[in-house]
Amino acid sequence: MALAALKSRRRDEYKFELEYRTRWSDNDMYHHVNNSIYYFLFDSVVNTYLINHCSLHPPTSSQIGLVVHSHCDYLAPIEFPAVVDLALRVNKLGKSSVTYEIGVFERGQVEVKAVGEFVHVFVDRDSRKPGADGMAASLKDGLSSILVDKAKL
Amino acid sequence: MALAALKSRRRDEYKFELEYRTRWSDNDMYHHVNNSIYYFLFDSVVNTYLINHCSLHPPTSSQIGLVVHSHCDYLAPIEFPAVVDLALRVNKLGKSSVTYEIGVFERGQVEVKAVGEFVHVFVDRDSRKPGADGMAASLKDGLSSILVDKAKL
Amino acid sequence: MALAALKSRRRDEYKFELEYRTRWSDNDMYHHVNNSIYYFLFDSVVNTYLINHCSLHPPTSSQIGLVVHSHCDYLAPIEFPAVVDLALRVNKLGKSSVTYEIGVFERGQVEVKAVGEFVHVFVDRDSRKPGADGMAASLKDGLSSILVDKAKL
Amino acid sequence: MALAALKSRRRDEYKFELEYRTRWSDNDMYHHVNNSIYYFLFDSVVNTYLINHCSLHPPTSSQIGLVVHSHCDYLAPIEFPAVVDLALRVNKLGKSSVTYEIGVFERGQVEVKAVGEFVHVFVDRDSRKPGADGMAASLKDGLSSILVDKAKL
Repeated sequence: MALAALKSRRRDEYKFELEYRTRWSDNDMYHHVNNSIYYFLFDSVVNTYLINHCSLHPPTSSQIGLVVHSHCDYLAPIEFPAVVDLALRVNKLGKSSVTYEIGVFERGQVEVKAVGEFVHVFVDRDSRKPGADGMAASLKDGLSSILVDKAKL
Repeated sequence: MALAALKSRRRDEYKFELEYRTRWSDNDMYHHVNNSIYYFLFDSVVNTYLINHCSLHPPTSSQIGLVVHSHCDYLAPIEFPAVVDLALRVNKLGKSSVTYEIGVFERGQVEVKAVGEFVHVFVDRDSRKPGADGMAASLKDGLSSILVDKAKL
Repeated sequence: MALAALKSRRRDEYKFELEYRTRWSDNDMYHHVNNSIYYFLFDSVVNTYLINHCSLHPPTSSQIGLVVHSHCDYLAPIEFPAVVDLALRVNKLGKSSVTYEIGVFERGQVEVKAVGEFVHVFVDRDSRKPGADGMAASLKDGLSSILVDKAKL
Repeated sequence: MALAALKSRRRDEYKFELEYRTRWSDNDMYHHVNNSIYYFLFDSVVNTYLINHCSLHPPTSSQIGLVVHSHCDYLAPIEFPAVVDLALRVNKLGKSSVTYEIGVFERGQVEVKAVGEFVHVFVDRDSRKPGADGMAASLKDGLSSILVDKAKL
């Protein structure tokens, strides 16, 4: 997606939001949250949504979500002890896979700080292969609720 | 301190509290928050307090706090996506050093999950040695506010 | 880049290599190295190269590298306690920016496990803006040594 | 243990050693490896030993090791990109529990940088309670091999 479009992202373009406090160790030697930490945050908001709204139970669910691709554009720095709002939406929902978009905002500010996407493929816990029928209905239903219109991508 | 005393710790025995959301990656292969993560949380609540209530500015302050000792007793597991309350107090305040105690509670539960202590020595940023006059007044003042009576240790 | 091309990446298509031991906590609840950890590894091999071969000194250098974009394709899982070989090359070298590619291999195996890229913009430490003359000569020289021919991208 | 005794620890007082490369993100805002990271390293050397020498298989073993206590004394800083040698021994071996000691050394240096201990209780994977017969024979045997004489504690 064009960088200009990403830079203009606002909270109301997302469908689910979770507040996260940054940690001391998130800041690296350059005194801002390290680029890798954003992916920890993406994983956290996505899995919280999957657990609370899609019936995922990571230790026992027959299907689990494996990340096959991720990317992030960093638009402005965030520094501990900032509180961030992680805003989540689904950009694409396939038979077994889903593409999430996460916007990272800082509490009290309008401009988006980073925008990333990652792709989960839901696979059988043991075989680690997608099922013939694709993802479970509870996943599909829950993820549909935060799917955006293609027109808004 | 006797383990029995630690197990009976309650939120009102602490003087400062901060809520932290756990992250997906905090859970290890045994499906609970990894023991090392508690120390990340300790660092986070302590440094938030130092920044917001003791005028510490980590990138530039002339004195910085170095950890010389830490320990933790793990009393019961916590699992992502739990929200934890980190409760902080100062158990001992010396000329250049301070011993913090942190109690880790889970949102909505009374029993303490873990209790740890760690010791900061405030040193000159460049020499990394304690100053002749000990810690700065802003540190001493801020830390005094959360110091507990020895009788309550 | 096409996924097929990435899957066929071999160690000899890179120009610098560093061995890294995985950590217990790198594995997440699904018993493999968490997707976010790969970015920690990318940062580590890149900065080791910058420090050892491009004269970067993170605490004091007048120019520092800020990450503005990163992405990764995960091709096969890695599990602690595996040892990984991080293989590095530069895919693009601009005036102030550089695009690295990192291949993640497992000790003793030929197939690549993950391939990622990230983009550093070298900026002035204080202003956090790129300099008028672009990156320092020591950076440009060191990075040129691991730049691949465009034909091999 | 007296701090003076810890400071004099040398590699030959340990029974198992593993080399670990530090990571970019291990360094915090003060440009040295963050205190919490040491516990990640402790977990890593201990679990590597348990997997390679005591037949532990974390995803399926009927008994798993839970950390009930940990502590660390930090004697001198380490900075990325240093390589560390993690030296391990068992200080105490009980029916179901074991106390490890880990010395952290920097590649090429004699003086110990940090010394920590942590206590594992081996419990049944499902009940999370110690078994009536204590830890499995493979654990007891493997851990006995790195147990030090009490006289040397």
